[in-house]
Amino acid sequence: VVRSIPRAVGAAMFTTNQVQAAPVLVSREHLGAAQPQAIVMNSGVANAATGARGRADAVAVAARTAALLDLRPEEVLVLSTGLIGAPLPIGRITEHLPVAVAAMTDTGGLDVAEAIMTTDTRPKHATAAGAGFTVGGVAKGSGMIHPALATMLAVVTTDHALTPEQAADHLHAAVGRSFNRITVDGDQSTNDAVVLLANGAAGAPAGEGDFRRALQQVCDDLARQIVADGEGATLIIEIRVTHAASEADAIAVAGSIATSNLVKTAAFGRDPNWGRVLAAAGAAVSDGRPVKLDVDLAELRFNDTLLFGSGAPTAGTPDMGGNVLRIDLDLGVGDGAAGYLSTDLTGDYVRINADYTT
Amino acid sequence: VVRSIPRAVGAAMFTTNQVQAAPVLVSREHLGAAQPQAIVMNSGVANAATGARGRADAVAVAARTAALLDLRPEEVLVLSTGLIGAPLPIGRITEHLPVAVAAMTDTGGLDVAEAIMTTDTRPKHATAAGAGFTVGGVAKGSGMIHPALATMLAVVTTDHALTPEQAADHLHAAVGRSFNRITVDGDQSTNDAVVLLANGAAGAPAGEGDFRRALQQVCDDLARQIVADGEGATLIIEIRVTHAASEADAIAVAGSIATSNLVKTAAFGRDPNWGRVLAAAGAAVSDGRPVKLDVDLAELRFNDTLLFGSGAPTAGTPDMGGNVLRIDLDLGVGDGAAGYLSTDLTGDYVRINADYTT
Repeated sequence: VVRSIPRAVGAAMFTTNQVQAAPVLVSREHLGAAQPQAIVMNSGVANAATGARGRADAVAVAARTAALLDLRPEEVLVLSTGLIGAPLPIGRITEHLPVAVAAMTDTGGLDVAEAIMTTDTRPKHATAAGAGFTVGGVAKGSGMIHPALATMLAVVTTDHALTPEQAADHLHAAVGRSFNRITVDGDQSTNDAVVLLANGAAGAPAGEGDFRRALQQVCDDLARQIVADGEGATLIIEIRVTHAASEADAIAVAGSIATSNLVKTAAFGRDPNWGRVLAAAGAAVSDGRPVKLDVDLAELRFNDTLLFGSGAPTAGTPDMGGNVLRIDLDLGVGDGAAGYLSTDLTGDYVRINADYTT
Repeated sequence: VVRSIPRAVGAAMFTTNQVQAAPVLVSREHLGAAQPQAIVMNSGVANAATGARGRADAVAVAARTAALLDLRPEEVLVLSTGLIGAPLPIGRITEHLPVAVAAMTDTGGLDVAEAIMTTDTRPKHATAAGAGFTVGGVAKGSGMIHPALATMLAVVTTDHALTPEQAADHLHAAVGRSFNRITVDGDQSTNDAVVLLANGAAGAPAGEGDFRRALQQVCDDLARQIVADGEGATLIIEIRVTHAASEADAIAVAGSIATSNLVKTAAFGRDPNWGRVLAAAGAAVSDGRPVKLDVDLAELRFNDTLLFGSGAPTAGTPDMGGNVLRIDLDLGVGDGAAGYLSTDLTGDYVRINADYTT
């Protein structure tokens, strides 16, 4: 359970999956009715595809938490992660909520990071200090516990003062360049959520630019931690696409490379297989149209070594050691640029997701 | 080498990847200039991303083949498959082309199916007889030889008489429902090509409907053989989406399920993890917009056992034995329907694509 003691202003972003978990639906309604003051999270059961019962359970968890914190139910958001289709153990949750609430402390952020872990092998948390204020965040994800999803939850708090509109704007911008630019397996959760709570306890209002930088830093940091802890991953793939026809094209190309199983298996094998990267780039579609790509203008580098340029392969041999593979693709056709983080695809990924039996 | 002795009419479809191999570019030009009479194919080297030299090599292969067959160069199509970025061994090819041409026979179709194999474990061929005519085809693909691509090549011939427009129309329709509805790993080749040659040797013109059915049957058969021989695959996933808002929505939903690594690893583990299927369906995007999906109207079956309906899970337990997993998703919102074939994602897939080092 996370709460703000001074009254907070909040914003949240949820999965765009058309199948939305009950806690996502309930939290959306609560956000429409009130500013959020607290967040209650559970792992193990996603409470997705659970029908009327699932909805009633999510409402009950929010109501019970609100009563314990002396809040209105709509001031509480509910986040769940885990197996799809299983019902919440609602009796155990309502029974133990008073224990969780009683255990809350001012310095419990790291406890939250641990409490929401599922198959995560490391707790994920980040902070950034600005001029007189602090931004802190926790996240879980990309280890998949029950055979469910690359479910990602993140909560970011700050003592900076924001209006609701500012909170939503800043969160949208920061998430667009962090959590929305990572992939482990291309699958999209029914439960993903990122919540920002801002309560102004810092007093002196800081510049918006300063806050934006701090928020971006925390979101980037958490997003990278999620990828680094990706299921079965042995390295991070840092993809940078520059000089695309537009930012949308750059995102599409970077995303196509980031989700290519052939690129990801080659990375696992430490094979500098740049042909797979070009092929994935050429397959990218932006807004229903192929991206603009002229192979004669493109330059492709692995870890700063040029492998393809002027329409033909070079004799370059990249250093494939280390646990980061940097892929830089310069399309040479415009001003669009985008980054993306991915992982390699390994036998451990398959084992983790295949061998568990429901 | 495949050729038609009576003058043929032809049509071809190529990969939509923005990075196109030299043989694809040259074959496109030849198709625009003449009706194709012969096809020359090589495996091992894709001749993609090879610059001006690659283009000159593809032109040279067509010209040499044309000279041997007494055809004009633009009457010959060139298809290559294999490693991206490596040059064709043009000397060996031109030296041995006379041997290949001398070995051609009227009954050599199965030899072609074997000759174009790469990591394919089985040759792929199919025939269908119509009223007085025959359609035959060969294909290679979905085993990836060099660490290149799920490159697919197919050649279909018939003694049915067609106009060029009919050939193109029929091929487009048949490919749309066969080769364009299969996936092994979601990656898209720089070299994919399907060619149809029709020479009318059967004499009596058959009904167009009859020919369409025969062509579809051959393409469906070859497409299924490619999936069944998919890299590391232990089963075929047959996906059927019905009652979608449109055919485009149905294709998008079926494709999203077919390419989900989580669905594919669960299939490998014989885990009836229907939640992953719902999540993949909900993530589908058609023409840049989320598909229409109301979870309360959807029904999901594995191997004919209802697992989700009326917005909630059932107590059904599907039979997960066998080497086919049938996934039927009824969206209950319209008249659109589509099928898709996929494979499971296995440790062998990762090994095959990671362990090979260029």
